[in-house]
Amino acid sequence: MMTAITRTDDLAAAATMRVLAAIADKRAGRRMDAATISAIVADFVDGRVPDYQMAAWLATVACRNLDAEETAALTDAYVDSGTRIRLRDDGRPIVDKHSTGGVGDKVTLYVAPIVAACGVAVGKVSGRGLGFAGGTVDKLQSIRGLRMDLSADEMRTTLKLVGMTITGQSDDLVPGDRATYGLRDVTGTVDNIPLIAASVMSKKIAAGTNGVVLDVKYGEGALIPERDRSEELARAMVDIGERSGLACRAVVSDMNRPLGYAVGNALEVKEALAALRGTPVAGLDELGGLIARLMLQIARPELDDTAADGLVREAIDSGAAWRQFRRWVAAQGGDVRQIDDPDLLPSAAHRLEVLAEEPGWVTAIAARPIGEAATLAGAGRLRYDQPIDPGAGVMLCRQLGERVENGQPLAELHWSGEKDVEPLTSAVRAAFTLAAEPAGPGPVVHKVICR
Amino acid sequence: MMTAITRTDDLAAAATMRVLAAIADKRAGRRMDAATISAIVADFVDGRVPDYQMAAWLATVACRNLDAEETAALTDAYVDSGTRIRLRDDGRPIVDKHSTGGVGDKVTLYVAPIVAACGVAVGKVSGRGLGFAGGTVDKLQSIRGLRMDLSADEMRTTLKLVGMTITGQSDDLVPGDRATYGLRDVTGTVDNIPLIAASVMSKKIAAGTNGVVLDVKYGEGALIPERDRSEELARAMVDIGERSGLACRAVVSDMNRPLGYAVGNALEVKEALAALRGTPVAGLDELGGLIARLMLQIARPELDDTAADGLVREAIDSGAAWRQFRRWVAAQGGDVRQIDDPDLLPSAAHRLEVLAEEPGWVTAIAARPIGEAATLAGAGRLRYDQPIDPGAGVMLCRQLGERVENGQPLAELHWSGEKDVEPLTSAVRAAFTLAAEPAGPGPVVHKVICR
Repeated sequence: MMTAITRTDDLAAAATMRVLAAIADKRAGRRMDAATISAIVADFVDGRVPDYQMAAWLATVACRNLDAEETAALTDAYVDSGTRIRLRDDGRPIVDKHSTGGVGDKVTLYVAPIVAACGVAVGKVSGRGLGFAGGTVDKLQSIRGLRMDLSADEMRTTLKLVGMTITGQSDDLVPGDRATYGLRDVTGTVDNIPLIAASVMSKKIAAGTNGVVLDVKYGEGALIPERDRSEELARAMVDIGERSGLACRAVVSDMNRPLGYAVGNALEVKEALAALRGTPVAGLDELGGLIARLMLQIARPELDDTAADGLVREAIDSGAAWRQFRRWVAAQGGDVRQIDDPDLLPSAAHRLEVLAEEPGWVTAIAARPIGEAATLAGAGRLRYDQPIDPGAGVMLCRQLGERVENGQPLAELHWSGEKDVEPLTSAVRAAFTLAAEPAGPGPVVHKVICR
Repeated sequence: MMTAITRTDDLAAAATMRVLAAIADKRAGRRMDAATISAIVADFVDGRVPDYQMAAWLATVACRNLDAEETAALTDAYVDSGTRIRLRDDGRPIVDKHSTGGVGDKVTLYVAPIVAACGVAVGKVSGRGLGFAGGTVDKLQSIRGLRMDLSADEMRTTLKLVGMTITGQSDDLVPGDRATYGLRDVTGTVDNIPLIAASVMSKKIAAGTNGVVLDVKYGEGALIPERDRSEELARAMVDIGERSGLACRAVVSDMNRPLGYAVGNALEVKEALAALRGTPVAGLDELGGLIARLMLQIARPELDDTAADGLVREAIDSGAAWRQFRRWVAAQGGDVRQIDDPDLLPSAAHRLEVLAEEPGWVTAIAARPIGEAATLAGAGRLRYDQPIDPGAGVMLCRQLGERVENGQPLAELHWSGEKDVEPLTSAVRAAFTLAAEPAGPGPVVHKVICR
């Protein structure tokens, strides 16, 4: 306020003046320089900028957006707020994949072992789930003993041993993003493309791989419902990654319907294991196959689509991908008996079939109510401190394009303990659109985006 | 998040969902209804909406603005958050005045006794100053014993006794605005017309007078530098007031230069007393005279401009206005000896003349550095918890349009205690623009706005 005279030797006062000026600048449509953005993130992490000031800054950014340079600067600020993992110590390329989240999204569980089985190392830092879209860490923790808290050293060791590693995010990876994300979540500032792009890409860059395939979902079960905005997000993320020397491809995919049949942690692990054994799973084959191919092509650019698809097919048909998954589970301390016999994985105490109340062709399965029902059955959490039930969830019995008769099951609800499941079964039933005429399901993959 | 199924019996959860939805709606350009705005303010006051969520809401509002209906709803929400003062218990009209704040703004001290001396009751709730613009409460507290913490009963009694009352804002008047303003101040969301308009007008409406004259300042020493935006604010405030049955006039006035010669608490009281005795004070006569006339005309619409101006002149020339001030000071417990002999008012231990370093005609006196120098000399505060020095400040020795020779005083700095005043005197000197040719000062009043 005292621009003309006051001296701001004090760090906290300087931080306050900087963030207030940045809020006013951004609101007035002026650009913020990289030094300002970097300082604001550092000041927030160090407590010099309190949460209400950061909230006002984020809300202003969400209204006015960040341009490409500002988004890159925010990404760098997140990366610089913590330690980078140095996965690449032996020169072998390592690839990663990331999904913006969706209902029944077990793609990581499927593609990581396929790609690793093809000889390309896979390194991935995963998040936990919040809300109706589950998280990969939660899914994998259905497997008894499987460690999701590896140190960077342990990640490198696992990579060397079995060619793949997946772990949860440690506290020292992008703490700036972690703190900011926590605040965005409670201030209505999650849904903004530059903020999402910087958040995701900072984690990818800090994880220290050579490239990443991004699965950007649109539809009512996705973070961003609109297809054009999902494409925009995909382009923004590819742009940030490539600026930082990360080879990036993005797949824009449909999340109006759940992916596959299983929604819930152990249920999804079982479905991924079946798919790795060669069982067809609607949607997962198409999307997972494409993502696996793109991951292979990042590491081995000489592979054309046919050759890469052939490797993917061969990894499944030969059982190499399934064995790869089993080897990896063992390497990270998981109980391989549950892999050999998936019935040993956690299961719910109660099951209830949700029956069709009319006959018809399934022309839509709304992802969001299915995801919400699974979450409320115990598969997900509404707050970060909630426990989850690994056995709970929803199994679809019908897929898009299939016929159901009156009284036949549409889906099955899995839960444990005392629960009034009537609202959940109603929501699951209402998620199905039954029509007099069949309609093709349409592709899951809408577009592939490269730089 | 769980729109389809979750029941939100919980008040806090409902409050969170409501404010997050409002943030998303506003950002997307949708209107908020009055019930939503009212609930958000109540939830914030009651602690169900934490400061970081309110900060995000305010920042979003500051980016997207509020329309007239939303602004009126926010004003009502502030008013309804506390108790209204019922000043109007005897049917006599009571008028108020309000300034958006400026350097050397002692207009209230001048007009309130003039208007009261003309037989029109004046009731006013004043704020404290923060930053380079001083507050009326601080100025009046230079007078020993003068109570600025009257209850509503005491305000009514004082009004009956002496026809005027001025007090500080009590905690139960518009607590919603008080809490919101405190947060706006530290989140860069002060400078937004609908938010300012709602904040000011809620206090005016809650104070329970019949009408108010608003002094909306523009220029570098004002809250809003741009003249057109000040006009916009003036119109918004008049609109809100008239919607609530408050007769409103707004004066749009120049705050590129300080008002009068004195900047500082006791210094300004002395200047106001001199003006009430008939001493001409550049700017104050023009602006104060107009505001007094408009206040009279609100209470007595039959008065034309000439008649009202005549009453104002007569109140000063007859000494009635000065006696009115003295009577009022006595009624609120102040020491009238300081009114009779203003030399008994607090004064600073040190004075230093700031001398011209070249000759010239004064064509500009920058209000902001003068206000900042006075504040740093001790007259103002940078934080709410700072004490102020009633004797400190800046006295101008030259006004716009006057000539100064090399070595003659431009102004005088007043302060007490140990202080490195060199930066202050430099700032005061630099505030003066000296030109080879004289230029008229131009009017202080730019425009009068009625509904």
